[in-house]
Amino acid sequence: MKRLKIAITMGDPAGIGPEIIAKMHLLHDVYKEADVFVIGDLFPMLSAQRTISAKLNIKPITNINNMSRDKNTINLLDMKILKLDDYCISESSPKAGMASFLYLKKAIELAHSKKIDGFVTAPINKHSLHLAGLKYPGHTEILAEFTKTKDFAMMLMSDKLRVVLATTHCAIADVPKKINTADLVRRLKLIDLSLRKDFGLIKPSIAVCGLNPHAGEQGAFGREEIMVISPAIKKARALGINADGPHPADTLFERVVNHRTHDAVLAMYHDQGLVPLKMLSFETGVNVTLGLPIVRTSPDHGTAYDIAGTGKAHEGSMWSAFETAVLMAKNRKK
Amino acid sequence: MKRLKIAITMGDPAGIGPEIIAKMHLLHDVYKEADVFVIGDLFPMLSAQRTISAKLNIKPITNINNMSRDKNTINLLDMKILKLDDYCISESSPKAGMASFLYLKKAIELAHSKKIDGFVTAPINKHSLHLAGLKYPGHTEILAEFTKTKDFAMMLMSDKLRVVLATTHCAIADVPKKINTADLVRRLKLIDLSLRKDFGLIKPSIAVCGLNPHAGEQGAFGREEIMVISPAIKKARALGINADGPHPADTLFERVVNHRTHDAVLAMYHDQGLVPLKMLSFETGVNVTLGLPIVRTSPDHGTAYDIAGTGKAHEGSMWSAFETAVLMAKNRKK
Repeated sequence: MKRLKIAITMGDPAGIGPEIIAKMHLLHDVYKEADVFVIGDLFPMLSAQRTISAKLNIKPITNINNMSRDKNTINLLDMKILKLDDYCISESSPKAGMASFLYLKKAIELAHSKKIDGFVTAPINKHSLHLAGLKYPGHTEILAEFTKTKDFAMMLMSDKLRVVLATTHCAIADVPKKINTADLVRRLKLIDLSLRKDFGLIKPSIAVCGLNPHAGEQGAFGREEIMVISPAIKKARALGINADGPHPADTLFERVVNHRTHDAVLAMYHDQGLVPLKMLSFETGVNVTLGLPIVRTSPDHGTAYDIAGTGKAHEGSMWSAFETAVLMAKNRKK
Repeated sequence: MKRLKIAITMGDPAGIGPEIIAKMHLLHDVYKEADVFVIGDLFPMLSAQRTISAKLNIKPITNINNMSRDKNTINLLDMKILKLDDYCISESSPKAGMASFLYLKKAIELAHSKKIDGFVTAPINKHSLHLAGLKYPGHTEILAEFTKTKDFAMMLMSDKLRVVLATTHCAIADVPKKINTADLVRRLKLIDLSLRKDFGLIKPSIAVCGLNPHAGEQGAFGREEIMVISPAIKKARALGINADGPHPADTLFERVVNHRTHDAVLAMYHDQGLVPLKMLSFETGVNVTLGLPIVRTSPDHGTAYDIAGTGKAHEGSMWSAFETAVLMAKNRKK
């Protein structure tokens, strides 16, 4: 198998992106399984190198077929977008927003034309994007637009748990109205396909949470399990997807985490899935966009302006995202 | 300090109660800090002894001031309610239901008249209670009635987390309507009092969860935090209670569990509090009834008819409940 090529987008240059990239190169064996380079700008990368360690070298590259594999060397595809005084650490700005968008666009182009096998995205700042006139809520929508993907979902994962949410940032009062059978089936298909294709599982099993406590106890408190969730599981099973449930969430997560009963969980709402995930994966959580034609992962945190530039940011989640991208790219190549 | 006296009610004789009591005596140092006896019947206790270990002895007692402290000896206050063929293992029956009720009533009387310092209750079977003509949903309502307690709540705990739920077995769609400021304040008062009196904390801190993801993000998705939860925290603080929030649940539990930021959490609904608790406390979870004039704890599981009589049931949760009752009784005596 040809050696993998993985890119890392720098994200918002005013956030912690450059320094967690630098830390990752310092503390982990980045080049073990892949050629790796950063898509970004020289000034933020230099500033991060000064903050993190003098041991680190930055090698600007123009040809992604000519990269260093030396430990402590960061290959940088210098996009030459930002000048030194174009941004300030920990501050939103239109120039930083536009730069973070262009790094991402470059990564999508390279992945789409198969010049790279996948990429990891350091966090971007929504406010900076908006200041740059880019009205995207986040990475996912940009990725969907530029890869022409209509059918996608986020999977959040730690080493012990993979979770997809049926609803995300909406009031609890709206959740019962928002879940519907067709959308749950759509998500189950995306999960099943990704577990096979990206994670190499032959017959992946997916647990579906109930919405209500005890999954409603046969309709005693809430009928969404009967009317919406069970029909979705039935339809998915008819498509050959190994989904089961609806399971009471309080006992399900304990079993999945401690006894590995399932390969992924479809949770009905934000806190149902993210309370257990964050308990397990603090500083190691990874987001994966399911449904894309390309491999893309990210750490599960934001730009952290409150600590940007201090060197305090933990690289764990970024490193896990990188390892996940490598794993996914390997499996897709098989 | 006079040596503590703790009772254990046998619970439903057809369930796992007798055998987890027997296992607890076999595997743990029951008499280290207290005189301990079981309130129940001889036949189920003998049957459990045969299932668990021939090393165990049963000492029927009539006087609770004359108990054995020998390891492997179970003191039994024989209530002489059940005959040998009055019940079958793993089957609901009116006689088993009535017996389990009378064991509990005896424990309440002994605790109320200060002849014991507290008690632990093995699980009862709701269906058997109903067959006996006793229309209680569970232990708590019996305890409340016979101790004339109007203001009570359940606290569920493991060694790393204590949780009280604002709502329990109701549909998610009903949760937003059910939470209200006065009830949250009432629960915060009960938690604060118990943490001081039962757990010996001088200035206990209580974290209050938001209802919505990210605690609603200042009203962006859901206004219950602004209208209901924040006013409750404000009122509780005015009463001298060290409560704070509303906190986004997904990051709160990680902090409470890994960094011990708070002594207890008030969660808004069942799965919000019980998903993290069960992940932490599988086979060690304890329920405590707050607001009672007496000390009562229980394991956080049911009668488990599917494994009753096999000896497979784990005694961990029962043992934790016992240790918690001892701790609470000690603190109340101070």
